[in-house]
Amino acid sequence: MTLDESGREKLARRLYEALAGGDADTLAGLLHPDFVGETTEGLPFGLGGRHDGPEAMTRDFWWSIGRHYRARAEPEQVLALADGGLVVLGRYTGSARDGGAPLDAAFAHVLRFTDDRISGLAQYTDSARWTAAVPAPPAGQRPLRVVEYSVQAGVATIRLNRPDAGNAIDPTMVEDLYEAAFRAGEDPSVRAVLLCGAGPHLSVGGDLPFFARTDDDARGSRLRQMTDLYHLALDRLAALDAPVVCAVRGAAAGGGMGLVHVADLVVAAEDSAFALGYAAIGLASDGANSWYLPRVVGMRRAQEMFLLNRRLTGREALEWGLVTEVLPADEVDARARAIADRLATGPTKALGSMKRLLRESWTNGLTQQVTTETDEMSAAGATDDAGEGIRAFVGKRKPEFRGH
Amino acid sequence: MTLDESGREKLARRLYEALAGGDADTLAGLLHPDFVGETTEGLPFGLGGRHDGPEAMTRDFWWSIGRHYRARAEPEQVLALADGGLVVLGRYTGSARDGGAPLDAAFAHVLRFTDDRISGLAQYTDSARWTAAVPAPPAGQRPLRVVEYSVQAGVATIRLNRPDAGNAIDPTMVEDLYEAAFRAGEDPSVRAVLLCGAGPHLSVGGDLPFFARTDDDARGSRLRQMTDLYHLALDRLAALDAPVVCAVRGAAAGGGMGLVHVADLVVAAEDSAFALGYAAIGLASDGANSWYLPRVVGMRRAQEMFLLNRRLTGREALEWGLVTEVLPADEVDARARAIADRLATGPTKALGSMKRLLRESWTNGLTQQVTTETDEMSAAGATDDAGEGIRAFVGKRKPEFRGH
Amino acid sequence: MTLDESGREKLARRLYEALAGGDADTLAGLLHPDFVGETTEGLPFGLGGRHDGPEAMTRDFWWSIGRHYRARAEPEQVLALADGGLVVLGRYTGSARDGGAPLDAAFAHVLRFTDDRISGLAQYTDSARWTAAVPAPPAGQRPLRVVEYSVQAGVATIRLNRPDAGNAIDPTMVEDLYEAAFRAGEDPSVRAVLLCGAGPHLSVGGDLPFFARTDDDARGSRLRQMTDLYHLALDRLAALDAPVVCAVRGAAAGGGMGLVHVADLVVAAEDSAFALGYAAIGLASDGANSWYLPRVVGMRRAQEMFLLNRRLTGREALEWGLVTEVLPADEVDARARAIADRLATGPTKALGSMKRLLRESWTNGLTQQVTTETDEMSAAGATDDAGEGIRAFVGKRKPEFRGH
Repeated sequence: MTLDESGREKLARRLYEALAGGDADTLAGLLHPDFVGETTEGLPFGLGGRHDGPEAMTRDFWWSIGRHYRARAEPEQVLALADGGLVVLGRYTGSARDGGAPLDAAFAHVLRFTDDRISGLAQYTDSARWTAAVPAPPAGQRPLRVVEYSVQAGVATIRLNRPDAGNAIDPTMVEDLYEAAFRAGEDPSVRAVLLCGAGPHLSVGGDLPFFARTDDDARGSRLRQMTDLYHLALDRLAALDAPVVCAVRGAAAGGGMGLVHVADLVVAAEDSAFALGYAAIGLASDGANSWYLPRVVGMRRAQEMFLLNRRLTGREALEWGLVTEVLPADEVDARARAIADRLATGPTKALGSMKRLLRESWTNGLTQQVTTETDEMSAAGATDDAGEGIRAFVGKRKPEFRGH
Repeated sequence: MTLDESGREKLARRLYEALAGGDADTLAGLLHPDFVGETTEGLPFGLGGRHDGPEAMTRDFWWSIGRHYRARAEPEQVLALADGGLVVLGRYTGSARDGGAPLDAAFAHVLRFTDDRISGLAQYTDSARWTAAVPAPPAGQRPLRVVEYSVQAGVATIRLNRPDAGNAIDPTMVEDLYEAAFRAGEDPSVRAVLLCGAGPHLSVGGDLPFFARTDDDARGSRLRQMTDLYHLALDRLAALDAPVVCAVRGAAAGGGMGLVHVADLVVAAEDSAFALGYAAIGLASDGANSWYLPRVVGMRRAQEMFLLNRRLTGREALEWGLVTEVLPADEVDARARAIADRLATGPTKALGSMKRLLRESWTNGLTQQVTTETDEMSAAGATDDAGEGIRAFVGKRKPEFRGH
Repeated sequence: MTLDESGREKLARRLYEALAGGDADTLAGLLHPDFVGETTEGLPFGLGGRHDGPEAMTRDFWWSIGRHYRARAEPEQVLALADGGLVVLGRYTGSARDGGAPLDAAFAHVLRFTDDRISGLAQYTDSARWTAAVPAPPAGQRPLRVVEYSVQAGVATIRLNRPDAGNAIDPTMVEDLYEAAFRAGEDPSVRAVLLCGAGPHLSVGGDLPFFARTDDDARGSRLRQMTDLYHLALDRLAALDAPVVCAVRGAAAGGGMGLVHVADLVVAAEDSAFALGYAAIGLASDGANSWYLPRVVGMRRAQEMFLLNRRLTGREALEWGLVTEVLPADEVDARARAIADRLATGPTKALGSMKRLLRESWTNGLTQQVTTETDEMSAAGATDDAGEGIRAFVGKRKPEFRGH
C-alpha cells in the first residue's frame, strides 16, 4: 500500500465522479483486478450480492443500476479506518427509469485498497427505498408467494400453498390468486385450469387470526379492501373461456368456497367439508357465496347454510348438487387433473360460450337469452373446431380440437 | 227532593254550560257525592262504562273526552219523567283532536236528582260515530283480532289464531298479519321471529267461503285489495333483519304457503301437507308462491305444483328442499321455538345482511352481487358482534352476541 | 274437320281475345261440348290437371286464374301440326292479386279441333313462376311437411314426423314447428298442447349431416338463421296460455331438449336419454338450454351437462327435476295424452296466468313479482271459471271450467 489517506480519499472521489459521468475507462483504471463488490442483498433487479472482478461489478451492478434508475451516489463524508480502508457516507438520489416514487436512500460504502487501486466495496443502503422507487410490476409479472402457478399441456394449475394455515385467505393470498387468474386469462395456450390446495385443506376461508389482530375501527375497511380484490380474482377465474376444475380435499369454508363456485366442475373427497361459518363470527358473505349457493342448492338450503351454519360432507354436497362428483380423498387430485386434461383437448371457444351463457342466463329473460344463444351458437359454429367436430361426428371418428 | 221540575231543568242547563265552559268548580257544585255515571259501552278510549263519584266521572269521562275530542253536547229538548228524573235529548258535535271525520252523534241523557243535586247520568249515544270520528290508530298500535303477537327473550311469536277456519286468510287475518309484521320490524329487541298457527293447520289458504259469497263482478277487485295488503305483510316479514322460523303442522296451502316462503328456516311435521290449489278453483298465484317456488324446488317441480296441483307431504317437502327439517307433528312447535331461541342470540345485523344478500342475489349479476357482498361484509365487519365473534373464534370460546 | 289452317288459327286468336276480355259468351261458342283441358300439374291453387268440358275448364281454370292473378296470355307464334292441331307459343304476364313477384312465364298450348270448334287444350308452362308470383301464405295457413298438427277435444297435438332421421332439426322442421306453434296460439279452442315425436326418438337435435354439408364459411350464418326461427317457435310455445305436455321416448338431445323445456309437464320413458352434445361437436347451446337447465337442475348440474356432456336417463332426469314423471316407454304417449286431456278441461286463463308468472319470476325481484301476482290473481278472479271453481269447491262438487 503506497497511497496515504489523502491519496486514498482522492481515489475514492474519482470513483464517484467516474460513476456519475459513466466514464468506463477511468473506472477500469481505478479498480484492482481482484476487486470484490458486496452489495445490499435486498436490492431489486438482482443488484444485491457479491460481484467478483471489475467487469462483473461494472456490468452487473453499476451499469445495471443505470438501466433501471437515473440515480446518483453523492458522498457527503469520508472517514478513514485504522486498517487503511475508508468509509464513505452519502445519499443516493434520483428516480426509477419507468416511473415510481423518487429515490432518496442513505448509503455507507466501505472501500478497500490494494496496490493503489480500489480492491473492495461493501455497500450498505436502504434497499426498501430502492424497491419503493420502482413501480409494482404489472399484473402477469408479479411474484407469487403463497400460490403456485404452472402450465403444462394446456392445463394451468393454480395451487394454494399455505398449508400450515389451511390455505387461509389473507391479503397476500388474495394478491397471488389475482395474479394467477390474470396469467391464466392472458395465456392463449391455457385451455383448462386446475384449482387445488397444498396440504390437508383446499381453504379454511378468511384468515381469522389476522382479523383478530386488526383494530375494531379498522376491521370493516380492511375487510373491504381484501374482499374487493378477492372478488376481482374470482370474477377473472369465472370469466375464463377455459373450463375450471376444482379439487377439494378437507375444508372448503367461508370465502374459500368461492374457489368451488367459480369452478365449472368440482371433484371432492367423500370426507371433505363445506361450511360457511359467517353466522358464528358475525360476518355476512363473501366469495360470491350469496350468488352461487341459491342457484346451486336452492334458496331454502342456502338459508340453512347461512343462518344455521349447516356443514356438508362431500357426499351431501353431491346430493345437493354443489359438487360434480365425490371420491376417496386420495383419488381426488388425480381425477380432477384427468378431467382438466380431457377438457384441455376440447373446443375451448365453444366451452367459453357455454360458460358465458350459463352465467348470463340468470339476469336474462327467456327471450333475451335465446337471442344470446343464437349469437354464441353462430360464433361457435364459425370456429375451426366446429367444422372438425361436426365432420368427426358424421364420420364417426374422434375429433381433434385445437381450441379455436 | 226539594226542587220542582223547573228547578231540575235549570240544574240540567247549568250542567251543560259548565261542561261546555270546562268549569270544574261549578260542575263540582252540581254533582251529588253519590253521583253515578253510566256511559255508552262502545265508546272509544275507555270512555264507556260506569263511573262512580263526581271525580271519576269528571276525570275519566268528561275531561277524557276533552283530551281526545273538541266536542260539545248541545241539548235540544228536555222531558220530565214521572219519577222526577229528566231526559235530555240533543247532539254531540265537534271533531277528534288528531284529525278524522267530523263528530255528529245524537244523545239521550237520563238525569237523576238527589238533595238538589244531580246524582245520576245514563248516557245513550251513537258510539260508532265517536269511533269513526277518530282516525284509525297507526300501524304498530292497532288491535289484533285473529293473530297473537308477543315478544319474549328476543323472540317475537306471531301466531295465526283462527283455528276453526283452519287459519284461512280473509281481510281481517291480512290486516293482523301486517300489524304483527310491522311491530316486529319496529322493535329493536326482536332478534328472531317464530311464525306458527293455532289449531291443526298453519293455514289452509284464502278463505274460499268468503269469496264464494262475493258477487262475481266484485271478486277481482276484492282479491286485489286483500292480496295487496297480504303481500305487503309478507314483504315486511321477508325484510326483517331478524331471522324468521316457521312451524308447519297440518296444511300450508295456497296463499298460506307464503308464510313458509318468507321464513328463513322451516320446521314441518312429517304429515304436514303443502299444496297450491289454484288450478282447482280457477285462480293464479299469491303469497309470492310464483317467486319462491321456482327458486326453491326448481322450475319443473314448480310447474307440477301449479298446473297439476301436486300435493307434498312434509317428508317430500324436505326432499324437494322446501322445508329445512321434518319431525313428528308433536315435536314441531318446540323445535321451531328452540331454533328461534338460538337465533335470537346470534349476530342479528350480520344475519340481516345474509338475508338481504340472498334475496337480492336473484336480480343481480355475479359482478354486482360480489360488490354488494363486499359492502355487507364491510358493514358486518364493523359491528361489535363481529369483533366479539372473531375474538371468540380465535380464543376458542363461545361468542356472546348482542345483536349490534 | 272443315276449317283450314288459317280458319283454325283465326279460332285460336279469338280464344285468346275472349280470355283477355273475360267474354264468357264468345268463349262458350268457341269450345266443343267434348272439350278437354290438360293443364300443368305444378300450378298453385289447384289449377293444374284435367278439366272435362267447357264449363269445368272455364270455371275451374280460366276464371280461377282470374280470381288469383291479373294475368294475360299473349300468343307470339302459332305453329301448325301435321294432324290438324296448332301449337301456340307465348308468355303469361301479370301479377298475383294479393301482391308477390311479377308473373312472366312462357307457355306452349297444343290446341285440338273438332267440328270447327276447339276440342282440346294441353298447357305447358313454367309453374314455378306462377308459384313464385304468389306471396308465401301467412303463418297459420302454411303447409306442414315434417310436423303433424291436429286438434281434438281441446287438445292440439304437435307431432314431429321425420322418424327416419330421429326427428332431427333442419330448416324445414323449424318452419313447421313455428307454423304449428302459431296455429295453436291463434285457435281459442285449444286448451292444452301435446308435443310428441313419431318413431323411436323425440328429437336427436340439430341435423348434423345437413351442417356437415354446409361450407365452413357459411356455417355460422346458416346456424344463425335456423336457430333464430327455432327460438321463435319455442318462444311461441312457451307463451301459450294452454299448458304444454311433452312425451319423451328415446333421445331428447341438443336443441331437441328445447321441446322438453317449453313444456310445462314432461312424461318420459324410463329408458329415454337426455344429453346436450354441444361439447362433442364444438357448438355452444340452443333451444333455450342455457336458460332452462340452470333453473331446472341447478347451476352445477347444468355445468356438468354442458362441459362434460353428461347424459341422463329418464329416471335420472326425474331425480334431477328435469321431467315430471317417468314410465315404461310403451305407456308414455297414453299418459301424456291423459294429462293433456285433463288439462284441457282446466281454467285455461288461470293456467296461462301461472305460466306467465313462473316465466317472469326469474327477472323480477320479490316485490315486483308479488305486484304482478296481484294483477294476475285479480284478473283470474274475474273470470267465469274462478266463480265456478270457488262455488264448486265450497259446494264440494267437481267444477266445470270452460276456459274463460
